[in-house]
Amino acid sequence: MSHPNDPALRSFIPVDPESDFPIQNLPYGVFSTAALAAPRVGVAIGEYILDLWELEQDGRLNFGVGPGVFAGRFLNHFMSLGPKVWAATRARISELLRHDTDELRDNEALRKRALVPMKEARLHMPIMVSGYTDFYASKEHASNVGIMFRGKDNALQPNWLHMPIGYNGRASTVVVSGTKVRRPRGQLKPPGADLPIFGACRRLDFELEMGAVVGQASAMGETLTEAQAEAMIFGFVLLNDWSARDIQQWEYVPLGPFQGKAFATSISPWVVTSAALEPFRRHGPKQDPAPLSYLQQIEPNNYDIELEVGLRAASMNKPARISRTNFKYMYWSSVQQLLHHASSGCAMNIGDLLGSGTISGPEKGQRGSLLEISWNGTEPAEIASGITRTFLEDGDSLVMRGWCEGEGYRVGFGEVEGTIMPA
Amino acid sequence: MSHPNDPALRSFIPVDPESDFPIQNLPYGVFSTAALAAPRVGVAIGEYILDLWELEQDGRLNFGVGPGVFAGRFLNHFMSLGPKVWAATRARISELLRHDTDELRDNEALRKRALVPMKEARLHMPIMVSGYTDFYASKEHASNVGIMFRGKDNALQPNWLHMPIGYNGRASTVVVSGTKVRRPRGQLKPPGADLPIFGACRRLDFELEMGAVVGQASAMGETLTEAQAEAMIFGFVLLNDWSARDIQQWEYVPLGPFQGKAFATSISPWVVTSAALEPFRRHGPKQDPAPLSYLQQIEPNNYDIELEVGLRAASMNKPARISRTNFKYMYWSSVQQLLHHASSGCAMNIGDLLGSGTISGPEKGQRGSLLEISWNGTEPAEIASGITRTFLEDGDSLVMRGWCEGEGYRVGFGEVEGTIMPA
Repeated sequence: MSHPNDPALRSFIPVDPESDFPIQNLPYGVFSTAALAAPRVGVAIGEYILDLWELEQDGRLNFGVGPGVFAGRFLNHFMSLGPKVWAATRARISELLRHDTDELRDNEALRKRALVPMKEARLHMPIMVSGYTDFYASKEHASNVGIMFRGKDNALQPNWLHMPIGYNGRASTVVVSGTKVRRPRGQLKPPGADLPIFGACRRLDFELEMGAVVGQASAMGETLTEAQAEAMIFGFVLLNDWSARDIQQWEYVPLGPFQGKAFATSISPWVVTSAALEPFRRHGPKQDPAPLSYLQQIEPNNYDIELEVGLRAASMNKPARISRTNFKYMYWSSVQQLLHHASSGCAMNIGDLLGSGTISGPEKGQRGSLLEISWNGTEPAEIASGITRTFLEDGDSLVMRGWCEGEGYRVGFGEVEGTIMPA
Repeated sequence: MSHPNDPALRSFIPVDPESDFPIQNLPYGVFSTAALAAPRVGVAIGEYILDLWELEQDGRLNFGVGPGVFAGRFLNHFMSLGPKVWAATRARISELLRHDTDELRDNEALRKRALVPMKEARLHMPIMVSGYTDFYASKEHASNVGIMFRGKDNALQPNWLHMPIGYNGRASTVVVSGTKVRRPRGQLKPPGADLPIFGACRRLDFELEMGAVVGQASAMGETLTEAQAEAMIFGFVLLNDWSARDIQQWEYVPLGPFQGKAFATSISPWVVTSAALEPFRRHGPKQDPAPLSYLQQIEPNNYDIELEVGLRAASMNKPARISRTNFKYMYWSSVQQLLHHASSGCAMNIGDLLGSGTISGPEKGQRGSLLEISWNGTEPAEIASGITRTFLEDGDSLVMRGWCEGEGYRVGFGEVEGTIMPA
């Protein structure tokens, strides 16, 4: 049998070459339709969702995936079954969807039950987020921010090249693409003011990130090897770490970002598995100084994922591109982030979400936040004719897309979108 | 019927006047015994635990508390039922335990099933921690730390008097009293070294805190009033926010504490309800400057809770007191912390735990951490004859106790204990 990543594989379901969801991808999500009483776990294939609960009920996934796993509201139960079940499920779904196997293709009744047109479905949060941690792992982003606030000679903090700097974010406000985001209010100290005020954020920003989804737990007091950390990462989503720059700036010394980040974090609804991303693994940038031994990695733990950010002001018909970059530029990989996260003995849980940190590339057009694009508000960016932005305005819609380019196909993430509502 | 807080109330169960658990307290916890198949929710009374599941099964709590609520592994389900059910349950339990009501007192069969000697029970984590947030709300503590690291003139950061500074901690490593704590390893930069190393923490500390348990949720985008925030706090626990000072010092700029705090946080097993603490509410210190309107409070939201910290080195028979202070000194109340936490629109969840921040008082003997007691390691403290400490050593056991002094009774928290294991 062909490997599920074989570029030559085709499904009996027609898939456009530009589609994010060919048979080589098979990302997991949670969906509902008007006809279903409760959400189910499904896999995206072309313009359809394959309903895994229906397959399981029909006895097509009978290798240890018990009933209820795919009727849950989240992927956490499925993830808890571990990498062997993940691999077996992926191989089995690939087999069922191939153009040259008849088991599903020629079973009209099952096809009708198990294949749901994506346009008829609503997509939900794919995971129950146990803990949300946000890193700061792009050297270009950290340097840009450092130059802005501390000047070129002190751009990177002394610790930055030695560990993936991160902080615990707020899991309760991680939401799925399409969720509207209310402009937060908070304490700000306007430039020149003596005292802070409480009011609507004036410097609302996005941050282009990827989120690594932890699919296996580690015990308190346990540390991890590279192989263990790698095996624990179930997959990835696109992630927009909405940021209130002015709230953050006033609050963050000395304990870090808090309310400036707590109002919303948006993720894409499809979790693209590490297995599907395997062909797109790359070595990251050379790390100098060499990381301490607990952070050393042998495997290529970066990924070649094209990323694009679009902004649509309320008066525009479609988003205009404001950034185009790649996940491969990240200095610290998700595996290194997980190694560091567990290094103190911190227990990792199924459903932990690790934001990569803002992904900026070396070029000006590759910046992953408006803070960088508008250089702290000093260089308004022209979005479309007559429309400029320093930070986000009410009614703005922010859309991120990501995909890997295969030979004749792409393994894509769909999109994560959010529209700003007034405070 | 007497109010459950009436100082004159007595239970038919004998309760020592020095006991933490008279009929005026009735704290909730989760316990198991050798005879029980699964943990249950109970209430402490003297040297017994009242098994609420048995009471419910016997039809004694039939006012909307459904089956299963008290068979759960955590208090979260019970908390979700809301303040009216909390009040009704407290009143009913108080009634059942009174010396002058016969319903339980004279029902030997039910008494045998429902009253479990505490010494035969094991106490578990009382809540499933949804999010753990740690604040920094004692002016004395923040000033001590500020003087140590920045000198007297810049002790408090500019934002400190304007908002309760806090950060998101790690919920996955909040553990119950009695759980052993492994000395964490991590990145440290020893004094004078050019480069960081990875090794065992050398400056391991405790932090004396109280934890407020959030028992009701608020929606994303919603902000709170003082009355709402007050009503959402189900109760309080003792909390030891273990801290690796050297890991923290190297990592915390600019995004705050991460691995230096992620290895363990210990809480006491009994959640003392806000209702039981009602007689011990006090106004906090005068706040100058006046807080912004969203943080203003009319009610007395501080509590007069005596706090004591003991340290027992491996060679000692019992803990020696190293600090004695009071929760009433806190500059920012738990209500203000919750108001601030939700101020950006951050959703609050049932089971959120808000650490108060280290509780230090104005006197030298009232310091809530070894960092302060040993003045950053420069003044070793004599714990017992021939035993001094700057920071914690392997084998050290740290015990915190807390209680409110009523008229002839005390409403206590029991203790939170943790012993340090080698890295």
